[in-house]
Amino acid sequence: MEKSWNFYGEETVNKASAFTIRTILNTLNDNLNKDEHRTAIPLAHGDPSGFPTFRTSNVAEDALIDAIKSGKYNSYGPSVGFIEARRSIAEYISGDQPFEISADDVYITVGARHAIDVILTVLARPGGNILFPKPGYPFYEARATFSHLEFRHFNLLPKQGWEVDLNHIETLADDKTVAIVITNPGNPCGNVYSREHLQKIAETAKRLGFLVIADEAYAHLAFGKNPFVPMQVFGSIAPVITVGSLSKRWMVPGWRFGWLVTCDPNGILKKLGVVDSIKSCLDITCDAPTFIQGAVPKILKEIPDDFYSKTVNLLKEAADVCFERLTEIPCITCPYKPEGSMFTMVKLNPSLLEGIDDDLHFCLKLAREESVIVLPGVTMGLKNWLRVTFAVKLATLEDGLARIQSFCSRHAKS
Amino acid sequence: MEKSWNFYGEETVNKASAFTIRTILNTLNDNLNKDEHRTAIPLAHGDPSGFPTFRTSNVAEDALIDAIKSGKYNSYGPSVGFIEARRSIAEYISGDQPFEISADDVYITVGARHAIDVILTVLARPGGNILFPKPGYPFYEARATFSHLEFRHFNLLPKQGWEVDLNHIETLADDKTVAIVITNPGNPCGNVYSREHLQKIAETAKRLGFLVIADEAYAHLAFGKNPFVPMQVFGSIAPVITVGSLSKRWMVPGWRFGWLVTCDPNGILKKLGVVDSIKSCLDITCDAPTFIQGAVPKILKEIPDDFYSKTVNLLKEAADVCFERLTEIPCITCPYKPEGSMFTMVKLNPSLLEGIDDDLHFCLKLAREESVIVLPGVTMGLKNWLRVTFAVKLATLEDGLARIQSFCSRHAKS
Repeated sequence: MEKSWNFYGEETVNKASAFTIRTILNTLNDNLNKDEHRTAIPLAHGDPSGFPTFRTSNVAEDALIDAIKSGKYNSYGPSVGFIEARRSIAEYISGDQPFEISADDVYITVGARHAIDVILTVLARPGGNILFPKPGYPFYEARATFSHLEFRHFNLLPKQGWEVDLNHIETLADDKTVAIVITNPGNPCGNVYSREHLQKIAETAKRLGFLVIADEAYAHLAFGKNPFVPMQVFGSIAPVITVGSLSKRWMVPGWRFGWLVTCDPNGILKKLGVVDSIKSCLDITCDAPTFIQGAVPKILKEIPDDFYSKTVNLLKEAADVCFERLTEIPCITCPYKPEGSMFTMVKLNPSLLEGIDDDLHFCLKLAREESVIVLPGVTMGLKNWLRVTFAVKLATLEDGLARIQSFCSRHAKS
Repeated sequence: MEKSWNFYGEETVNKASAFTIRTILNTLNDNLNKDEHRTAIPLAHGDPSGFPTFRTSNVAEDALIDAIKSGKYNSYGPSVGFIEARRSIAEYISGDQPFEISADDVYITVGARHAIDVILTVLARPGGNILFPKPGYPFYEARATFSHLEFRHFNLLPKQGWEVDLNHIETLADDKTVAIVITNPGNPCGNVYSREHLQKIAETAKRLGFLVIADEAYAHLAFGKNPFVPMQVFGSIAPVITVGSLSKRWMVPGWRFGWLVTCDPNGILKKLGVVDSIKSCLDITCDAPTFIQGAVPKILKEIPDDFYSKTVNLLKEAADVCFERLTEIPCITCPYKPEGSMFTMVKLNPSLLEGIDDDLHFCLKLAREESVIVLPGVTMGLKNWLRVTFAVKLATLEDGLARIQSFCSRHAKS
């Protein structure tokens, strides 16, 4: 008789992981045709760092190298992060705010994802719920599932610049709603919210009693009519917890360096034990490598402005091309020209295509036939939409869009 | 009337964090006398990396710098880690094993603590329990608390080289016992287990139906009669999951690089869903920075042997001094001369001291009066014991031990 063992794998993590972009990306990549001679074109995830035009500043690389050479960062650091790193992030963020952020408000994390992990862990009260945007970044759904925190989806309005449907919020929230997640600049929508809209969100949060989680992983990557306005500007209306990272603006997602910042001039987070729980959670989860923390002050202060403006210009040019080409494809509708982040969200009409059932089917077939990877909207909560990133080298983008165009005409119903 | 908010800080993380060494270290450090002119001596945590004699190999630093300069590691990596890094760890570990470990058995983590987080998350079945050593490394209790996994403590036997009390195991385990944690070389005890003892543990695990978590964070730091034997040697008796890290042998705890390795020639972990859950858990938790992964093959292959032997010799010399000096102090008993890791566990007799109630009181007063930090045994589950690290510069160790000696004679009952 076979030996019986007392242990088995946990189910919740499997359920949680199924939400992640990684899971669907693996499926799409597995579906690439191995005999295809053309290079695969990755238009699914926001990571242009591998293209030479998008390589990070040499100031950032040198800062890291100097920190390693100094030998000062081999030892353990504090779980909240080194004070110098926290202070430099506080100064960086305080730039255009009505109130100063202090080093004590900043917590270093292993990328923005760790910051999300910490916030959702800390807010998971029994019977509580949280509001996520639809479409949104599915790592939130994954972590909420893991924390047994119910999530409710509010609509973003494509024809109104993907603004939050505030009326929908009113119908969803109750006295167990702990927070709302606002992603600005938007992933997957490419939106950049106006100051007025952000203020209305903060006022809604105050009236309904929840806090605002401001996912600003794409902060400052804005190139349309609205400038990027940090949510913390409205921290005196409702408490704001901001998620940030080096990954996108500095083009180093592999470095896994992020932060979580509390903006709470009225001391509500402290009073309600949220600050203590954040610290406790950091005590029992991962720490960011110390030498990256050592490099951060230099990275935030010494990189010349033209590095940032070059990136934004490259993204704007790519966004324009992406929008124009996709607009020309009959089975695709583009309700909004992206003004920020690295993505656009476009609507697919599968009824105009022969033998393609839905967005997932479209993406699988596209990967197989054209070696182009785009993300099915269903991953972000919107069936029969597509998320396309324009954050790749321009020639690669043009090649990818041409392949999508040719794929769509080949499969168009006659 | 004050606005009412729907959210508040989560309690479990606070309970979990209270177990960590960080929490007690903060208390002890806060208790240092700010007017003291002598330098504080850290004999509490195992991190000698700040002392020039213990600085990591320049091969390791150069490998990291080369990886950064290459620009090849700025992008996202896979959640299980890069295949090259996984393969090099597999080869490194396969060295003296009866069966080959493959790259697929290796998962990259953000330090050993992340590996522990993953394992305990994956094993937390409803109603399950897990066996931890007493004394032990309290991060396990922290993570089990977070995962709502009941833990039961089995005794280590100080007079038998801190071996596992196997009879005690029999009385503790039941059919809901999922795993046992074995720390070898030992933290906090400085033990190095014989091959025979490890085999008996594996046989016990098999008979009782649980797996073995082998915490080998201090692997190869052995300098007594027993050579270091990896638990995986007995993976065919019961499945073994090993926790490892660059932190200790390479003296770079700040780099936050660890791994988790499954050794399971009979395919039990795979069959029972543990492997899938590990992957899922890695999908939703932190990733190790990619450039450290890029440096790992070189770190594991190209560091000359004399770096490793120098470290072990320094530790052995320090362990001998530490044991000798502590043995001379009347209120302290040393049941075992440390043969590995960076610690020794010694018994305190507070009844020989005037006005000192217990180990915690001893440590607080010692910090205040002598600026020496040692860890109270109660943190590791043994009241009226002390954990002392010898992994500091020899002159610093001698200074610290002299201060402890003078403290004890000053407070000795006449």
